[in-house]
Amino acid sequence: MTDGRRTDEERPRRGLTRRGLITTAGVAGAGLGLGAAGYALGQERAEEDGGEGTGTVPFWGERQAGIVTAQQDRLHFAAFDVTAETPAELEALLREWTAAAAALTAGLPAGPRNDEPLLPPDDTGEAFGHLPSRLTITFGVGPGLFERDGVDRFGLRSRRPPELRQMPPLPAEAIDPDRSGGDLCIQACSDDPQVAFHAVRNLARIGRGSVVMRWSQLGFGRTATTTRAQDTPRNLMGFKDGTNNVRAEDSAELDQFVWVGDEAPEWLRGGSYMVTRRIRMLIESWDRTNLAEQERVIGREKPTGAPLGGGSEFDQPDLAARGPEGPVIARDAHIRLSSGDALGTRILRRGYSFTDGFDEVTGQLDAGLFFICFQRDPGQFETIQRNLSADLLNEYIVHSSSAVFAIPPGAVEGGFVGEGLLS
Amino acid sequence: MTDGRRTDEERPRRGLTRRGLITTAGVAGAGLGLGAAGYALGQERAEEDGGEGTGTVPFWGERQAGIVTAQQDRLHFAAFDVTAETPAELEALLREWTAAAAALTAGLPAGPRNDEPLLPPDDTGEAFGHLPSRLTITFGVGPGLFERDGVDRFGLRSRRPPELRQMPPLPAEAIDPDRSGGDLCIQACSDDPQVAFHAVRNLARIGRGSVVMRWSQLGFGRTATTTRAQDTPRNLMGFKDGTNNVRAEDSAELDQFVWVGDEAPEWLRGGSYMVTRRIRMLIESWDRTNLAEQERVIGREKPTGAPLGGGSEFDQPDLAARGPEGPVIARDAHIRLSSGDALGTRILRRGYSFTDGFDEVTGQLDAGLFFICFQRDPGQFETIQRNLSADLLNEYIVHSSSAVFAIPPGAVEGGFVGEGLLS
Repeated sequence: MTDGRRTDEERPRRGLTRRGLITTAGVAGAGLGLGAAGYALGQERAEEDGGEGTGTVPFWGERQAGIVTAQQDRLHFAAFDVTAETPAELEALLREWTAAAAALTAGLPAGPRNDEPLLPPDDTGEAFGHLPSRLTITFGVGPGLFERDGVDRFGLRSRRPPELRQMPPLPAEAIDPDRSGGDLCIQACSDDPQVAFHAVRNLARIGRGSVVMRWSQLGFGRTATTTRAQDTPRNLMGFKDGTNNVRAEDSAELDQFVWVGDEAPEWLRGGSYMVTRRIRMLIESWDRTNLAEQERVIGREKPTGAPLGGGSEFDQPDLAARGPEGPVIARDAHIRLSSGDALGTRILRRGYSFTDGFDEVTGQLDAGLFFICFQRDPGQFETIQRNLSADLLNEYIVHSSSAVFAIPPGAVEGGFVGEGLLS
Repeated sequence: MTDGRRTDEERPRRGLTRRGLITTAGVAGAGLGLGAAGYALGQERAEEDGGEGTGTVPFWGERQAGIVTAQQDRLHFAAFDVTAETPAELEALLREWTAAAAALTAGLPAGPRNDEPLLPPDDTGEAFGHLPSRLTITFGVGPGLFERDGVDRFGLRSRRPPELRQMPPLPAEAIDPDRSGGDLCIQACSDDPQVAFHAVRNLARIGRGSVVMRWSQLGFGRTATTTRAQDTPRNLMGFKDGTNNVRAEDSAELDQFVWVGDEAPEWLRGGSYMVTRRIRMLIESWDRTNLAEQERVIGREKPTGAPLGGGSEFDQPDLAARGPEGPVIARDAHIRLSSGDALGTRILRRGYSFTDGFDEVTGQLDAGLFFICFQRDPGQFETIQRNLSADLLNEYIVHSSSAVFAIPPGAVEGGFVGEGLLS
């Protein structure tokens, strides 16, 4: 997880909002339609309500939002299989998704027609009255879009970069193929779960006939009003998670480790790769483990997040320190093995905790970390994950889902995400 | 859903908090233990951080919290089957649960021992650094506690009020028995999902050996920072939901319709009955329905929530009004049939929206309303639900889970919830 700092891509929201819109509609008694008055009222409201968790993150731009954006509180992730059969249908889908995403992230309805009595409204309505809530919508393309079962469905085979493929077998995993992979993905993040749900629901609806949902995942993180922004969030093992992460402010690191450069086909330059891993935590086993062992497994103090051996949370771990019984940070401690630094690589983590009820077979809680990371090459994640084969933590976790998506660069207004790929 | 108003049982939190505790622990380097300094620091922090979504709802008192408490943003609900075999074990469970719930709702760890290296910590730790976030924990007892398969396991058979039984078959349902019923339930509500999860996880852990989780449900509602408190929340059909509800301020109505009186066995007097229904919405069908039909089904305008025929949201529907084509509010509109007023009864609704991914068989979103209501007699819900057999809405919903619990009155400090039942 990131450290919760704000980037300068965020600013107080301006202009029309779902809230302004519904208020105007109510006053005018004119349904969910929109007149000039709505715009002005929305703007006024926006300034009045300004504050954390209510802002608008710009959709259009050089990069897609939702990568270096300061992490929002909630996630709704969905992966889709494409059922469209022609390049034209695929292009129409991406154009419609892009236009709807631009509207939704600005706090507008998914489409303009919401007051025609004899038509289904373009927008399903449950986010009316909600602020934009820093909604970001990030689109990705999976390997199956380029070739499925040997068939080059959309004439894209030659455009697939070799790095875009499913992960090979890795340690500590029992992958469920039905909740892995996908031809396209949508990562919707917002400080309001209803806003994130609304986005995925309306995009899925727009995609009907062209895509079917393959799997989805909800997640939660820091809650802005009940934790402090400068505190590193804790994962469901009770440890701070995300202390050592690429910083959104560090553009040199981003260029080196996150943004795809000239090595990639032109359509992907300036974009990134996303890897998702649903990491189930074996919570009941973990909760029966004593504190010293928990700290030995992770390599940090549980209360403070400081590396074992002293110092404070953000100090570099002293991996060479030795105590009377050997290394202070165990040879197979999670922080030692999971740090890309020793491997010469880094990744930008942006995961969310999840809880999906409990496992009916074992009666154990089905909860953990929906790990999302961004990198210039999925091999960066693979390198780090391979290094975890001896990780003490593997006794308490299992990766149950895996996916890799290429994240195209952002779109300019009037264009669409993935335009470079299809043109 | 309730209307989001605050009751006077809420006040700024005071005293020790998870946040103060962890900070002190960090400063002192003393693990998750607690000294006098922690208390003072916590108190100071509390005042500094005061604001919506951070408060403490008192646990001890005449009634259990979580019934008339202004609705929090998030729900984690769990139902359990009791595997304990003796009344003494059952009592020990309820005593431990009560003590832990009192601590958790005050923003304290689930138990005091969190810094012994050779013991598993009493608290799992993921809520350290989070404010109390208006956490409430409400316990209920189901019919199975009194008799299961004809066996009077705990000598309680004679204490079961006849009203405490599973719901008979009702309209618009396809009940899954595996996610229905339960001997005990925990309703954890908070403005922070991690705090609600933490509560259920730690209580389930304390209950290990005495209970097994039978089913659980997450839910979400209004998000305090991204919607306005005075706005009625919208459900996932896009309509305002909860306009006509019993008000927490209306003590005469509560006494008449929500709190159990002298008609009940002494152990339940001052308590209530909870009915839960997982109402799946057939979202894809609904989203294909035109606006006029959606409004006809509900009986209200979608944008404003005003009853059809004019006025504003909180105006009484004019059920007698007729237009050129018959009643303005259809004979089988949801608001006409679901209002208990015509039936001489009312219930206190306190439900949450849910989304559990999607149905792998149909590819449709698995989302809807986890309906919770409180009433003096479960027959009140039954009466209203029976009246919905012709409801137009039934084409778009299905009840997939059902449960009934008796909610004992609150506990005094040093006692435990359910003490009257077991003594």
